[in-house]
This record gives sequence, structure tokens and C-alpha cells, in this order.
Amino acid sequence: MGTFNTRVHFKNRKSKINVGAQPGTIDIPEDALPPKIVIYSFNQNDLQTSEGTDMKTITEQIKVCNDHTHWIKINGLGDAQLIEDIGTFLGINHLVLEDVVNTHQRPKFDEYDNYVFGTSRIIFFNKNNELVNCQFSGIVKDNIVISFEESHTDYFESVKARLKAGKGLIRTAGPGYIFYALTDTILDNYFVVLSQIGDRIDATEDKLYLRPDKSIMFEAQQLKRTLIIIRRSCWPERDKINDMIRSESDLITKDVKIYLRDAYDHCIQAMDMVESYKEVTSSIIDLYLSMVSNRMNEIMKVLTIISVIFIPLTFVAGVYGMNFSRTDDHGHLLPDNMPELYTRHGYVYAIGGMILLGLIQVFIFWKKGWFNKL
Amino acid sequence: MGTFNTRVHFKNRKSKINVGAQPGTIDIPEDALPPKIVIYSFNQNDLQTSEGTDMKTITEQIKVCNDHTHWIKINGLGDAQLIEDIGTFLGINHLVLEDVVNTHQRPKFDEYDNYVFGTSRIIFFNKNNELVNCQFSGIVKDNIVISFEESHTDYFESVKARLKAGKGLIRTAGPGYIFYALTDTILDNYFVVLSQIGDRIDATEDKLYLRPDKSIMFEAQQLKRTLIIIRRSCWPERDKINDMIRSESDLITKDVKIYLRDAYDHCIQAMDMVESYKEVTSSIIDLYLSMVSNRMNEIMKVLTIISVIFIPLTFVAGVYGMNFSRTDDHGHLLPDNMPELYTRHGYVYAIGGMILLGLIQVFIFWKKGWFNKL
Amino acid sequence: MGTFNTRVHFKNRKSKINVGAQPGTIDIPEDALPPKIVIYSFNQNDLQTSEGTDMKTITEQIKVCNDHTHWIKINGLGDAQLIEDIGTFLGINHLVLEDVVNTHQRPKFDEYDNYVFGTSRIIFFNKNNELVNCQFSGIVKDNIVISFEESHTDYFESVKARLKAGKGLIRTAGPGYIFYALTDTILDNYFVVLSQIGDRIDATEDKLYLRPDKSIMFEAQQLKRTLIIIRRSCWPERDKINDMIRSESDLITKDVKIYLRDAYDHCIQAMDMVESYKEVTSSIIDLYLSMVSNRMNEIMKVLTIISVIFIPLTFVAGVYGMNFSRTDDHGHLLPDNMPELYTRHGYVYAIGGMILLGLIQVFIFWKKGWFNKL
Amino acid sequence: MGTFNTRVHFKNRKSKINVGAQPGTIDIPEDALPPKIVIYSFNQNDLQTSEGTDMKTITEQIKVCNDHTHWIKINGLGDAQLIEDIGTFLGINHLVLEDVVNTHQRPKFDEYDNYVFGTSRIIFFNKNNELVNCQFSGIVKDNIVISFEESHTDYFESVKARLKAGKGLIRTAGPGYIFYALTDTILDNYFVVLSQIGDRIDATEDKLYLRPDKSIMFEAQQLKRTLIIIRRSCWPERDKINDMIRSESDLITKDVKIYLRDAYDHCIQAMDMVESYKEVTSSIIDLYLSMVSNRMNEIMKVLTIISVIFIPLTFVAGVYGMNFSRTDDHGHLLPDNMPELYTRHGYVYAIGGMILLGLIQVFIFWKKGWFNKL
Amino acid sequence: MGTFNTRVHFKNRKSKINVGAQPGTIDIPEDALPPKIVIYSFNQNDLQTSEGTDMKTITEQIKVCNDHTHWIKINGLGDAQLIEDIGTFLGINHLVLEDVVNTHQRPKFDEYDNYVFGTSRIIFFNKNNELVNCQFSGIVKDNIVISFEESHTDYFESVKARLKAGKGLIRTAGPGYIFYALTDTILDNYFVVLSQIGDRIDATEDKLYLRPDKSIMFEAQQLKRTLIIIRRSCWPERDKINDMIRSESDLITKDVKIYLRDAYDHCIQAMDMVESYKEVTSSIIDLYLSMVSNRMNEIMKVLTIISVIFIPLTFVAGVYGMNFSRTDDHGHLLPDNMPELYTRHGYVYAIGGMILLGLIQVFIFWKKGWFNKL
Ligand SMILES: [Mg+2]
Ligand SMILES: [Mg+2]
Ligand SMILES: [Mg+2]
Ligand SMILES: [Mg+2]
Ligand SMILES: [Mg+2]
Ligand SMILES: [Mg+2]
Ligand SMILES: [Mg+2]
Ligand SMILES: [Mg+2]
Ligand SMILES: [Mg+2]
Ligand SMILES: [Mg+2]
Ligand SMILES: [Mg+2]
Ligand SMILES: [Mg+2]
Ligand SMILES: [Mg+2]
Ligand SMILES: [Mg+2]
Ligand SMILES: [Mg+2]
Ligand SMILES: [Mg+2]
Ligand SMILES: [Mg+2]
Ligand SMILES: [Mg+2]
Ligand SMILES: [Mg+2]
Ligand SMILES: [Mg+2]
Ligand SMILES: [Mg+2]
Ligand SMILES: [Mg+2]
Ligand SMILES: [Mg+2]
Ligand SMILES: [Mg+2]
Ligand SMILES: [Mg+2]
Ligand SMILES: [Mg+2]
Ligand SMILES: [Mg+2]
Ligand SMILES: [Mg+2]
Ligand SMILES: [Mg+2]
Ligand SMILES: [Mg+2]
Ligand SMILES: [Mg+2]
Repeated sequence: MGTFNTRVHFKNRKSKINVGAQPGTIDIPEDALPPKIVIYSFNQNDLQTSEGTDMKTITEQIKVCNDHTHWIKINGLGDAQLIEDIGTFLGINHLVLEDVVNTHQRPKFDEYDNYVFGTSRIIFFNKNNELVNCQFSGIVKDNIVISFEESHTDYFESVKARLKAGKGLIRTAGPGYIFYALTDTILDNYFVVLSQIGDRIDATEDKLYLRPDKSIMFEAQQLKRTLIIIRRSCWPERDKINDMIRSESDLITKDVKIYLRDAYDHCIQAMDMVESYKEVTSSIIDLYLSMVSNRMNEIMKVLTIISVIFIPLTFVAGVYGMNFSRTDDHGHLLPDNMPELYTRHGYVYAIGGMILLGLIQVFIFWKKGWFNKL
Repeated sequence: MGTFNTRVHFKNRKSKINVGAQPGTIDIPEDALPPKIVIYSFNQNDLQTSEGTDMKTITEQIKVCNDHTHWIKINGLGDAQLIEDIGTFLGINHLVLEDVVNTHQRPKFDEYDNYVFGTSRIIFFNKNNELVNCQFSGIVKDNIVISFEESHTDYFESVKARLKAGKGLIRTAGPGYIFYALTDTILDNYFVVLSQIGDRIDATEDKLYLRPDKSIMFEAQQLKRTLIIIRRSCWPERDKINDMIRSESDLITKDVKIYLRDAYDHCIQAMDMVESYKEVTSSIIDLYLSMVSNRMNEIMKVLTIISVIFIPLTFVAGVYGMNFSRTDDHGHLLPDNMPELYTRHGYVYAIGGMILLGLIQVFIFWKKGWFNKL
Repeated sequence: MGTFNTRVHFKNRKSKINVGAQPGTIDIPEDALPPKIVIYSFNQNDLQTSEGTDMKTITEQIKVCNDHTHWIKINGLGDAQLIEDIGTFLGINHLVLEDVVNTHQRPKFDEYDNYVFGTSRIIFFNKNNELVNCQFSGIVKDNIVISFEESHTDYFESVKARLKAGKGLIRTAGPGYIFYALTDTILDNYFVVLSQIGDRIDATEDKLYLRPDKSIMFEAQQLKRTLIIIRRSCWPERDKINDMIRSESDLITKDVKIYLRDAYDHCIQAMDMVESYKEVTSSIIDLYLSMVSNRMNEIMKVLTIISVIFIPLTFVAGVYGMNFSRTDDHGHLLPDNMPELYTRHGYVYAIGGMILLGLIQVFIFWKKGWFNKL
Repeated sequence: MGTFNTRVHFKNRKSKINVGAQPGTIDIPEDALPPKIVIYSFNQNDLQTSEGTDMKTITEQIKVCNDHTHWIKINGLGDAQLIEDIGTFLGINHLVLEDVVNTHQRPKFDEYDNYVFGTSRIIFFNKNNELVNCQFSGIVKDNIVISFEESHTDYFESVKARLKAGKGLIRTAGPGYIFYALTDTILDNYFVVLSQIGDRIDATEDKLYLRPDKSIMFEAQQLKRTLIIIRRSCWPERDKINDMIRSESDLITKDVKIYLRDAYDHCIQAMDMVESYKEVTSSIIDLYLSMVSNRMNEIMKVLTIISVIFIPLTFVAGVYGMNFSRTDDHGHLLPDNMPELYTRHGYVYAIGGMILLGLIQVFIFWKKGWFNKL
Repeated sequence: MGTFNTRVHFKNRKSKINVGAQPGTIDIPEDALPPKIVIYSFNQNDLQTSEGTDMKTITEQIKVCNDHTHWIKINGLGDAQLIEDIGTFLGINHLVLEDVVNTHQRPKFDEYDNYVFGTSRIIFFNKNNELVNCQFSGIVKDNIVISFEESHTDYFESVKARLKAGKGLIRTAGPGYIFYALTDTILDNYFVVLSQIGDRIDATEDKLYLRPDKSIMFEAQQLKRTLIIIRRSCWPERDKINDMIRSESDLITKDVKIYLRDAYDHCIQAMDMVESYKEVTSSIIDLYLSMVSNRMNEIMKVLTIISVIFIPLTFVAGVYGMNFSRTDDHGHLLPDNMPELYTRHGYVYAIGGMILLGLIQVFIFWKKGWFNKL
């Protein structure tokens, strides 16, 4: 696995800001994907599926299966007309529709007179190891739950499988339970992402202990940013689930609330993991910086000790390399000029003196504890 | 785009402090601009506009359009008399008028017996890339909304355009909706500013990866300060909107509150972006400091390795450059003085020994892992 | 005692994430241990014990001792069927059973219609000095308390001993008191762990003062991580005990609440110790880094002073080692070339000048205070 | 303007600690100033002034002006008898009198049966640029407000001027309004102090950009401490004003509360400025430290590059300075000893080789980007 | 005064952890001191004193002085039987008795049916300048207050003196007032300790400015730890006093609550001082680290400048010290070998060139601002 790619380029994400626009304006970003609609209509005994790309798919299916619960699953938000039509068909406030297509919402849960609206952040690593952070939103009204996903990725396969199997409460507990099940799946995926991050932290820590290099700092910073993105989704998700638990809407039944309390626990567990991982990441950074500093320290010490030993010796050698002349221009002896050079054992004494000087220095440094590792 | 200019000179901003002055004193700063008044009087079918610079403009327009809603837009707060007259005309508390001209208010919302008062911070980058942080305030009473802006910049064009178009609620939902629309426009502009900052962070991060230099530290500090200024406006703005949502004044209708809840979400989104940007900025600083430290480390290593290799070699060369004489002053051989110099292969052995010594050192350093990058 | 082993490998802990699975699925991790069941059935006068590994052990014992209070102690959660059977026998919600086997719960206390459920973290150092952080959970219903432990370690010997002795409230205060006694034992063990950490901090601080080396940084980081793990268990444990104190369930009697208040105090005491230890650990890191920096500083100073003294001297020696010729190619005297070398006392003056230069430098550095320790 | 003098010597400030003394003991510090009393007695039409140093001044003036409101202004708290007499005259609790003379109170507002008591911190720079932080306290009872100031400085001139002018509410709104006006003057002075600090921060930042030196660190630390002292007064002042707003005492009338709300805003504005200034100060420190580090980095680079270029060259020169003899002691040629020295172009090649070696090194360092600024 | 001795050895403090022991077990630590009992029995007119070491002392005195208020002062907790007997005599819960002897309680205030219980931390510097942090606890029931102190130090002399003097409320306001007076004395001593710490901070700051050395870092860390210990006692003490103020027990009368409010203020004042001192300590550390870094910087600069000036000069000298021969082995002139050495003014030009090179370098470094202090 390569390193995560979490450098976010802010430019494109923010290109559409209509200053002072009428609130509730449905303004599709240029790179939005075309919608794909799948409708699952079910009751305890039956499950009908229908696919399409326009409003007619929805209205017909609802007409046909009039005693069913409907999960209308929409992937891709690129068709303003479709969003408008759904709004008109179900009587949804324009501010809600705007939130559906303006895909930078924090997780939240809003109650309206006869429907509820919620958003979450879908987070996963795509095939290029890039962290994808896209929006999920859902509307629950009467016997209908509509889910909007920004991407075309098939994210809710397990819920579809459970619908097909038809066991447990999934077909009988109403549209609120479907909305819970989708939220829960999103939360489960936070753990998948956190598990991948955990592996990566492990790999970075392995590298720290076995073959530290300067990529550690960069990787640790990337991990930190990734964790912050998850925390930023997780905190308001927790508040959102709490809002759902305290909701007085009939659409969130008492049975569903028991499951929401479980999801609330998972949310806090995910946040706990994020905190743990952040602390391990900080600790990796601290240990790495300490290693770098130790390395500098050791190199410095070797330089100093070798330099300090040889600098005086080299000076002595330089002195005895001076060319003070033993005779003046007339050939007369100059007896004061470097007499050491002309004695029988001058060289031996010089070499011996140098060795002695070196040893004295080594002894001093050893006494000062410079040969200890700090 | 140049770098942001966010160095604030505190001197001038604080020049007018009247210690112990009577509260409610209207004390115009010297550099305040002369007021320009534009009045938009409208109902579902009609929109009248009137311009001027004095109180008469206002009183006449209100007399003429007596069944309209009025938006009195005042740019420039340099005329104490005008502010006083407006206060007298509408029966506004002097403390409110003082807040209008003392343009360092935090965003707030105050309710009085029959009117409401609110302030916001207008933030944008001017043509010199300087962050402008000036005051907006508004009074809503009966069918009138008066807006005061510190600058002459035309900031609310989109609201004017919506008034002219006359679609949606803008002409029919009363003066409270106009006040909301102005606040919302200010908030939208926070996203414009944040988008510009996002671009700048991107550019700084590009520089960090491609051609890091010491301007990065400076730019990152400037970005941090800019973000802090925005956060300082955004936090109390959120509280202010919350106060408006919980207001019991008739001037903030139930319909307007639905829109205020949307604005509240935007406020939190802006704060979220500020937090994200601050974290990215901190991460840029950390990575830059780590790069600088790595650079020092690498330079240090090269210095050490080359020095440590050559220092002993140079010493050896120095030793064999000493002038210990082979003969004494009388020409007698001194056989102990540097006999190496007089052997057949002395030079070859010396050079060979030096090379060997160098290689041993390289081997030791390689063994110690000093050639690895840390 | 060796250093603590607190490096956590995240990979295996997170291997089982069933994205979108039906909530309440009992999904046993592969490395879960097989269950061992021990049942203590007691009243004021009698204590019956029974052991086994399957549901029959439980049902028979309860049938036999029908007027007793039962503590069903289960070590090892590796048998999904057993967990299911217990759930069915006592009418426990599947979400609770899932929490029992999904052993990453934060401490919590949940109330249901006619039973209560709580979890805690059991923390201790095993024989390899590794920090073990495993799950305890308990269900209290009617006259039964069931405790589930992840490990086979015999952790509650003291409670068993008190049951056998039969003094105090242990046999008479009902199953809620047993649940309290187990929680209190877990808390007591936090102090044992903290005491071991205290010893380790002491040892690290001793090392800091007596023989500092680079292992200090590593040990301090490990201690910090260990303390964070304990804090992460202790904070929600406190909230859980508070939830129990405010519980309105008959299973937590007024008498038990007096004891829970005592446990609450212990919880806060443990957190206080964690905070103290964290601060001491931070202080050790700060002092160590300061020592390292002082060491570098001192080494640097010695290098500088010796280098700076000898560099000019070596240059002078080098100058007098130059071979400027006293005669040209034709043997004519070149009187301007190095005349110093041919004077009577040239060498003496040169050596004397060098010594003087060295002393002047030493004097300057002493004046600048470079010989002081900073 | 010189630098601020904010080094606080703790010794003298704490000299009087009477451990276990009876609460309510009036214990005058040795350096307390003798009291000066000025009484302003006024109603809508009249203003009488009276001065003195003892209790008689007060009792007589109150007897004479029996239908007036009285502001008794006391500067200097050095007379225990006076404080006692005032307490007895007005029936004030001894704990209150103790707070008046124990001048280390945090700002607070206490209500008693028929009077209220409040303290504030008066903060200003004296002529020596030292930050003075002394105590103001006030008692409001019936138609009397007594203000106690620790210093003799004439701090409330503007309030006196307003009393003389007699405009606005100052003479008619009762003693509670006087107490508000004094508090408001103290708050206004916080802005004066903050403005002086702003100038100082500006000067420090100028120095940072234009002629950075090591005094910056010291000045920034001093500014930080000064700001912390102001924050420490401002936070509880805010709480105190809030307590006054929520007071149910008749002495704080509804009219006064409207003004207190304005003062509350000012308090938050002052805290906002403190936070801004603290962040700018931190940013100055960070930039200064970064500059210092950049400077070290640059110096290091020059040292390294020049050293690393010359070290091998000097070694080569050293090698060719060795004295390996071309002849042995018997005059026989030793052809292997330094044959380079005896070739026709040996010197030219040597110099050329050195230049080439130097250029290669420069090229390598340039390639490695060491000539870029980081 | 020497430095504080705040290194805490954790080992002994935690030696007694009875995992899973019956709650309420009275388990005396080995190093507990034997108890000394003094009883003060008093009413408005009378004060009886009695001393002893066992239960009989207490029972007899209470029998004799049956219309008095009793303060039973116990120093030393080493006698389990005595604690048990007191518990039985007054009907005190075993959990309370356990808290009395387990001397690691945080300050707290607990109410029981007919008595109240409170603990505080007594903090002082002993004769060896070690910070002592021992436990005070007190029980108030009917007309009796029992105080338990861990140490034999006579800490409450001032309260005894006030009892003897008999002035004020001390003899008449009941046992709750005595309990307040003891708490207040403990709080007063916090100011004594803080005053000593203030002196120490002053001394450390003096050293920082006058003769900085590496002990500063160590002392600042010790001061920080000491301050943290005080904060850790002060925070819960504040909460405890607040609990007492809000208590509904008859034992804490309305009169006592007025005094408790004063004690609450003192508690906050102490915490304010702790925060101020912590900030000054942090500032000392920052300035010291900055000084150390400046020192390194200056040393580095001198090394670099001198090295960089001499390195090229020494190389030039080395070049002219090479032994390239002017004649080949056959005595033929080699005119290209070092012709400079054989020119008339070669030496003068060489020396001149070196001086010029040195001056150019000095000029460049001066231009670069390297001679400025940063
Ligand atoms: Mg983010
Ligand atoms: Mg958030
Ligand atoms: Mg949980
Ligand atoms: Mg957590
Ligand atoms: Mg955790
Ligand atoms: Mg968490
Ligand atoms: Mg404000
Ligand atoms: Mg600001
Ligand atoms: Mg704020
Ligand atoms: Mg939002
Ligand atoms: Mg955020
Ligand atoms: Mg936010
Ligand atoms: Mg950081
Ligand atoms: Mg953890
Ligand atoms: Mg938590
Ligand atoms: Mg406690
Ligand atoms: Mg704690
Ligand atoms: Mg704590
Ligand atoms: Mg503690
Ligand atoms: Mg605490
Ligand atoms: Mg630290
Ligand atoms: Mg202070
Ligand atoms: Mg405070
Ligand atoms: Mg602020
Ligand atoms: Mg603030
Ligand atoms: Mg900073
Ligand atoms: Mg502590
Ligand atoms: Mg106070
Ligand atoms: Mg405080
Ligand atoms: Mg505090
Ligand atoms: Mg600091």
C-alpha cells in the first residue's frame, strides 16, 4: 500500500459561491454526476425493484406498489430538474433541496412538519488511496425514504442484501429504520477507514523503529490530517444521532431509537479511536524529531572530538614545518632558529609529544562523559 | 496574486477613546466617510428608489410611499447630525446610535421595546489584497429597515437585483426578511474570502513541495492571522443568529426564522472551514520547519564526513611536511629524524596509508548509518 | 523490571468489521477464548458453587438454588451459542449481547425494562510487562448477576474470598452490590497499575538525574501512552458510575448507591494520579531535552574556542612554511622574500607572537563570558 | 517610549498574611496611603462639594445636604479607624470592610440586605511606564455611593466634569448610576491601556521587520505578561457586570441595567482585543524564532560550503608540502618519492587539478540546491 | 534559601492497595503516627481543655461538659481501634472512617443524615524545604466537631488562640463555625506557601537576568510542579466550599455561610495567583531557552567568521608551502614549477593578497549583516 494522498486542493471544491443568491436556489456544480435512480418497494412478503433516471420512474413505482414502503436511492446529483420535481412531488422545502445538492453540509438532522431530513459524510479510500469525503442525505416522509448520494459508488450493498433476505426488522420497521440502517452502514465504514489508518500508522511506526527517514514526518502529517477529517465528520454525526434520539417525530419510532443509541455508542467509539490514533501519531512525530536531534548530536560529537584532537596536533606539525633558516644569507649559523629540528631525537620527541597530547585530550573528554550516549 | 497584507497597524484604529464620556455619545472618527443614502420602497407590485445625503430624503420618501416597506441604505457614517436625526425620527436609544458609529462592535442582536438592532462584520479583500474588516449594522422597526455600512463599497448588489426582480419572498416577507437577506449576503462573502484563502494556502503548499524558501513561514503566519480574524467575526455571528432565531419580537417572523436556521448552518460551515484551514496552515508550518531542520542535518552530515575524513589525513601530511633535519649543524647524519622520508617507497606507502585511513573512516560511517537519510 | 511494552499493533484488533451487518449480530472474533462458567449461589447462610462450560450448568443451578442470589461468572467469550442461550433464557436484547462479545466498548451503564447492563475496562500488566486492556461486562436481572470477562485470568479472587467469608453486605445486599463489588475491584486494580507506572516514572527520573541516555525519551513516550490508555478508561468509568448513582432501577438499591459514591471518589482520585503522572512525565521530557541541548551547547563551545584559538595560529605557521625562495634561479639574493626566516631570533619571536595571540583570544572569550556555563 | 516594565516583584505584595486571623479583621498594609475624602452632594439643581480626611467631614455633609445624593470619594486606605467608622455609620459587614483594605480582590459584586458592594481593578501605565494594577471598590446604600481607591491618582475627572455640567442622567438617576459611571470609566481606561500596548506591539513588529535583535523576545514576553494581567481583570469584571444586570436590588435600577448591558459589550470587546494582541504577540515570537533559525541556517551553509571546498584542496597542498626526499642519505635517487614534484608541468597540473576539484564541488552543491535559500 | 525539593518518590505513597477489599476497611499505613487527642470544650463563658491518646479521654470530657461545644483535635491516625471507637460512639459510616485514614482524598464535602464530613489538603514547606501535602478531615455532629490531621505539626495555633481570647463568634457560632475556621486557616496557609514560591520565582528571575546558568531550567520545572500540586488541592477545595454554601444541613448555619462565601473568594484568589505564577514560570523557561539559543547563535557566528576568513588564507599558504622542485633530477630548470616563489616581491605580494582577501571577506559578511546581533 502506498502512502495516503490527503493533500486537498481547495480551489475546485469552492468554485460555486453565489453571493446573495435567493436561499433555496438549486445550483448544480459542474462536475456533478448524472443521477441513477433505484427504487426498492417492499413489505413483509414482497420486494419490488425498479430503475431509471427520471421522475417518472418514481411516480409510477409508487402508484403501482401503493401499500409498500419505498426506498428511493439516487446516486448522482447532476439533474436540477429531478431534484425540483422530487421536491414538488413530496412537498419539500427549497432550503432542504439546496442542502441536498450543496454537498458541503455538516452532518445534521432537521425536522419539518411532516418529514425529516438528515445528512452524513461518506468517507472512504478510493482505489488511488485518496480519501473521498462525499455527502449522503436522506428524507423520510410517510412510507418513503429517499437517499441522495454524491457519488456513483455502490456503498449500501449490505443493506440491499438484508432487504432481499428479508430477515429481522429491515422490511417491517418502517422507513425510519431504513434511514437508520444507512446511517449505521456509513458509521461502520468509518471503522474500515480507521482500520486502514491503523495499518498505516503501524507501518509508519515500523519504519520509525527499523529504518527511519525523513518521509516519516510527511506521513505522520498526512495521517494527522486524515484523522482530523474523520473527526470533523464524526463529532457532528454524534450530535445528529442524539437529535434523532430526542426527536418527537413519528417517523423515528421508539424501536428505531434503541438502535440509534447503539449507533451513538459506535460514534463515540470511532471518536475514541481517532483520539488514540492522533496521540500515537503525535508520539511518532515526537520520537522522530528526537531521533533526528540525537543523530545531529552524535555527528556533532564525533566532529568535535576528532577536530579538537587533531587541531592542536596539526598546529604543532605546522610549526615544525616552518622554514626558519638555520643559516642567514651569509651562511652564518642562526642557533635560535628551530634548534629542535637539529637534535638527534627531535622527531621522536615531537611524535611522542603529539601522541601524548592526543591521549590527554581523549582522557579529558572521557572524564567529561562525552563518550556516553545522551 | 501577491501575498495577503494582514499586518494591522493598531495605532489609528484606536485613536478615539473618550474616557468617562457620557454613554451614548455620538463621536464620529476623523476618517469616517460622508453618508450616501439610498431608499428602496416596495410592495408586491411597486419599487420606488430615492437617493440623497440628508434626513429630508428619508422623511419625504416615507411620507410619499406610506403603504410600502422601506429599506434605507446608508453608506458612510461621517455625519453625526444625520445619525442623531434618524434616532429622533424613529425613537432609537442613544446607546444604539453610539454602536452604529463606534465601528468596533462584535456581531450582536439586541431587542428593544418596538425595534431590533443587529451588527455584523463585513470582511473582504480589497484591490490591494488587504483584508478589510468593517462594520454593518441594521435597525428594524415597523415597516422600515435601516442599514448602516462603514464603507462606500457597493456590497449588496445581489439583494438590490432580487428586489428589482421581485421574485420569491423578498418584497413580501417584511423588513425582517430584508435584514436576514443582508446578513446572509455578508455570510456568503465569508465563503468568498475563505475561498481566496484556500487558493493562497494551496499556493503556499505548492511552494512548500516545489521550491521551499523562507517566505513560507511568513505567509503561513499571515494566513493564520487572517483566519483568526474571520473566526473572531464568525463565532459571535453564530450566537447573534441564534439570538434572532430565539427572538420573540414580531419583527422576526416564523418564516424568516426558517431562513435564519439555514444561515446558522452556513455560519457553522464557515467556522469548520476556518478550523480546517488553520490545521492545514499549522501542518504547513510544521512541515516547513521539519524541512529546514532536515536541510541543516544534511549539510551538517556532509561537513562532518568530509572534515572527519580529511582532518587526520591533513595531519599526516603536516607531519611529513615537518622540517626535522637529517643532518645536524655539523653535517652529521641524524638517523632518527624522519627516516620514512629517506626510504625508497616512503611516499607510496604514505599515500597508500592515507587512502586506507580514508576508506576505513568511510566504512565506519557507512556502518553507523550516516549515509542514510534521516 | 524491564521497560513497559506499550506499542500496540492495530492490525489484528480491528479485523472483524461487518459493514452494514444487522445490528445485534453476535460475531465472535477468531482469537476469542472458550468460556468457563462458575456459578456462586448464596444467601445469608449458604454458598453453593457449580462449574461448567454450557447453558445446562446455569439452568440447573438456578433451578436447584431457587431462593439464592446467583453470580454467574463467565471467562472467555468464544461460544456464540452460549451467549445466545443466555440472552434467550433471561430475555436480553440482542444489542446488549453484541456489546458483550464486541470487546471494544467504552465503560457505560444502560438501563432496560427489567435489567441493567454495564461494561468496564480491565487493565493490568501481564507477565511480559505488556499492558492488557480487556473488557468486563455485567448484566443484573432479578436475583442474578452475570459477569463476562474477555480473558481467563482470575481477576476477582478477593470478591470470591469475601463471598466465602460471608461477612458484611456481600451476601445480603443483592446482585446490584455484587456488580458494584466487581466494578470496585476493577477500580482498585487501576491503582495497582498506577503504582507500577509510578515506580517506572521514578526509575526513569532516577536515570535522568544519574545516567541520562536517549532511552529516556522513548520510555517517557511509552509512559505517556500507557497513562492515556488508563485515562481513556477512567473518564467514561466515572460517567458510568454517575449514571448508576442516578439510576432509578430497583436493582441499584439506595445502600449500593452509598458505596457507588465512594467508587466515584476513587475514580476521580485515579484520574488525578493520571494527570499528576502525565505532568511529571512531560517534565521529564522537557528536562531531558534541555539536558541534550545543554550538552550540544557545551560541546559546541569547546569546539569553537579550540578551533578559533588555533585557526589563526595554524595560518601563521603555514605562512612561515611557505617556500618563497631567498635566491632566484640564478642564485641572486631576493631580500624581500621572507626576511623574517633569516633573522637571528625570528623563530623565537614567531613562537612568542603565536602564544601572545592565543592568550589575547582566551582573554576576549573569557571577557565575553564564554567560559561560564549557561 | 521605553519598553514596559512588567517584571513584578512578588515579595512585598504578599507581606501581610495573618494566618488564621479572625475573618473581617481590618489590617492596613504598611505602605497604604493616608485617605483623602471628597464628597459630592447633588440633586437636579444643586451640587455641593466638601473635602477632608476624617469621619466628621462625611457626617456633617450628609446632615447638611439631607435631600441630596452623595458620592463619597476616598483616595488612600491607610486609616483603619476611618474604615471602621464608615462601617459603623452605614452598618456594613466587617467582611466587606476587610475586602476594601485587602487590595487583592478579583472584580466581584456582592449583594447584602440593604446595600451592594463591588470591586474592580484600575489598570494604567504610570509615568515610568510601569503597569499599575490597583483596587477600586464601592458601596451603594440608600442615597449614598462610597468609592474607595487604593491610590491618590485623580482617576475619575471625567465623572466629576459630568456632575458639574449636570447634563444627562448623571445627577438624577441615583447612586447606582454613579457606581455604573465609575465602572464604565475604569473599563474605558482598559482601552487606553490596550491602545498603548497596541502601539508597543506595532513598534516591536516594526523592529522585527526592519532591524531584528534579541530584545524582541524579551519585549514580546513582557507584552504577553501585561496582556495576561489585563485579561485576568477583564474576565471577572465581565462576570461582575453580569451579576449586576441580574441583581434584584432596588439600588440597580432598570435604567442603569440598560447602561450596564453596554458596559458588558465593552468588556467583551476589551477581551477580544486582548486575545487579538496575544495572538499577534505569539506570531511575533514565532517569526522571530524562525528568523533566528534561518540566520543560523545561512551561516551554517556558508561555513560548510567554504570548508568543504577548501578542506580537500588544503589536504592536496599538504601532500605536496611533504618532505619525502628525492635522494637517500647517500645521495642515491629515490625515483618513487614524489615524482610529480620533478616533472615540468607538475605545479600547473596541481593548481589546475585543485581548481577543477573546487568547481566539481561547487557544481555538486548547486545541484543539491544548497545555494537556494530555504 | 535552597531550592525546593519537590521530586516526589511515588513508591512509598502507594504501598497499601488492598485490591477488592471490603469497602470501609480501616487499614492504617505502616508509617502512620500515633494519635494525640486534645479536646476543647467551650461555651460563651467557659473553656475546658483535656488531653490524651484514647477513647476514654473523649467520652469523659463529653460527659463532664455536657452543655459545651466540643472540638476534638486528633493529630496522627496510627490507631485503628481509636478510629473505630469514634465511629461507633458517634454513629459514623465506615466509608467515612476509611476516608479519614486513607490520606489521599481530594477535598470534598459529604452530607449524611445527621452529620457532615469534609476533607482538605494541608500544604506547607517543612524545614528541609520539602513540600508537605497531608490530609485534614473533619466531622461535625450535634455540638461536636472532630478534626483529624495526618501529621503532628501544630497547625491551628491561631484558632486555639482565638478560642482562648473568646472574642467574636468563635465560641458562640457552633461547631460549623469551628469547621469553617479550620478550613480558612488551611486556605490562609496556601497564601503563605504561594508567597514563598513567589520569592523563589523572584530569585530565579533575578538569576535569569544577572547570572543565567543551567540550574534555571531545573528550578523552573520544580516550581511548575509545586504550583500544579497546589492547583490540584485548590480546585476541589473551591468546589467543596461551594457544596458547603449550598448545603441544607442545620450544622452549616446561615451565619457560617456568609463566612464561607469569603473563603470561596480566597480560594479563587489563590487559584489566580497559581495561574499568574505558572505563567511567569513559563515565561522564565521561554526566556532562558531563548538566551541559550542566542548564546549558541553568537558562538556559531564567531566560529564561522574566523574559520571562513582563515580557511582560504591557510590554503594559499599551503599552496606556497608545496615542494614542487625548481629543478628536475638532473638539475635542469623547471621554469613552470612555482615561478612566484622566485620573483623579487613574491612574498610581499602573497602576504598583501592574503590581507586583501581577508578584508574582502570581512566586508561581505558586514554587508550581509552578520556582525549585527540577532
Ligand atoms: Mg478538514
Ligand atoms: Mg465541530
Ligand atoms: Mg462505546
Ligand atoms: Mg476519546
Ligand atoms: Mg481509546
Ligand atoms: Mg472520543
Ligand atoms: Mg462587543
Ligand atoms: Mg482580530
Ligand atoms: Mg469570542
Ligand atoms: Mg453546516
Ligand atoms: Mg470544525
Ligand atoms: Mg467549527
Ligand atoms: Mg502543530
Ligand atoms: Mg489508547
Ligand atoms: Mg470521552
Ligand atoms: Mg477523591
Ligand atoms: Mg482528573
Ligand atoms: Mg485530575
Ligand atoms: Mg494529585
Ligand atoms: Mg480535577
Ligand atoms: Mg512538553
Ligand atoms: Mg495576575
Ligand atoms: Mg480568571
Ligand atoms: Mg476573543
Ligand atoms: Mg474575547
Ligand atoms: Mg504561535
Ligand atoms: Mg502533582
Ligand atoms: Mg477574589
Ligand atoms: Mg483564576
Ligand atoms: Mg485561576
Ligand atoms: Mg510559554
